[in-house]
Amino acid sequence: MTIKLYCFGESGNAYKAALTLELSGLDWEPVFVDFFHGESRSPEFRELNPMGEVPVMIDGDVTLSQSGVIQDYVSSKSGKLGGRSANERREILRWQFWDNHKMSSVAGPTRFLMNFIPEDKRPVEVIAFNQGRLNAAYKVLEGELSKRDWLVGDTITLADISCCGYLFYPEPFGFDRTEWPAIDAWLTRISDTPGWKHPYDLMPGSPADRA
Amino acid sequence: MTIKLYCFGESGNAYKAALTLELSGLDWEPVFVDFFHGESRSPEFRELNPMGEVPVMIDGDVTLSQSGVIQDYVSSKSGKLGGRSANERREILRWQFWDNHKMSSVAGPTRFLMNFIPEDKRPVEVIAFNQGRLNAAYKVLEGELSKRDWLVGDTITLADISCCGYLFYPEPFGFDRTEWPAIDAWLTRISDTPGWKHPYDLMPGSPADRA
Repeated sequence: MTIKLYCFGESGNAYKAALTLELSGLDWEPVFVDFFHGESRSPEFRELNPMGEVPVMIDGDVTLSQSGVIQDYVSSKSGKLGGRSANERREILRWQFWDNHKMSSVAGPTRFLMNFIPEDKRPVEVIAFNQGRLNAAYKVLEGELSKRDWLVGDTITLADISCCGYLFYPEPFGFDRTEWPAIDAWLTRISDTPGWKHPYDLMPGSPADRA
Repeated sequence: MTIKLYCFGESGNAYKAALTLELSGLDWEPVFVDFFHGESRSPEFRELNPMGEVPVMIDGDVTLSQSGVIQDYVSSKSGKLGGRSANERREILRWQFWDNHKMSSVAGPTRFLMNFIPEDKRPVEVIAFNQGRLNAAYKVLEGELSKRDWLVGDTITLADISCCGYLFYPEPFGFDRTEWPAIDAWLTRISDTPGWKHPYDLMPGSPADRA
């Protein structure tokens, strides 16, 4: 049975799940959620996910939200991208939590505020505060990636896919990869991985569709 | 061997790990980290955890940070608090990610800004924005807890311990449990659980020590 992923192109969180599915080799297809017209907050969508957010994955009788859990499920099912030992698996989960806690949870709203609401409504103090938090996160990531090619072990894992979730997007949110050489080289390693796709090529919906 | 948890009383993220350890029945002891004098961001502490944050758990040759992973480790080791089926385990992980992504990652900084920096330095726009996000999170939690006693299954799990991380603290950050009856009743169920302790009784360090 084909796994369905409810998603839209602009969502870095959905991208983490979509890229994990794509690189796992499992059979999957995206289902477009019209976030910019409120679909993910509609009563119908909340039947699927009371948290009112994408991504949502459906595989037979398993329905899951939260990209980290979907990643974990896809890795368990495919036997790929999940590390090679108990220690690696814990380290992967650690980076997934760190990303969700310290990076994506700040990058997502900041990118939204800087790109997807009217310019005169942008809360400049919030954006500046968030960018300060993001810089602290980039610094941690840069430091770790200066020591090794991949976050955990010697190949791409869920940890890398989680942490890169927002970093390939072209819209500005206070991240310029040329300022972070180790992150920059790592992003190139990720995009050189066979099967890799850019978020706007992997999922339906992009700013171009709404222009 | 006694598990060591590097922590301090004010950290809701450390509380999630500490309460999990306490309720698991494993042998553990807290190690005080002097966050308010910069210890968690010192070079020495970054040797222990390059992410520069508490909690950090050390159990023999296993060193872990990120409360969600520590919870997972403690649950695996003790066989407690982790759900009774693969489906429950995935649901627990989903709530842990949701908490880290949508609730604790906002509650922690907001509580910090409202209580632990000088009053004339508080960024009011950031606080108001964050409180809006937190209210959306409380609404999701209230909705789910209106349907059942515990977030996953029929007893307390890591999911409940994660999501309650900041909600027992007395310092204001835009949460008043009397406004959320289902959350309020659930917090009472948690604090009625045998072995439960308030964060300031479970970990060293509290605002009273610095008064």
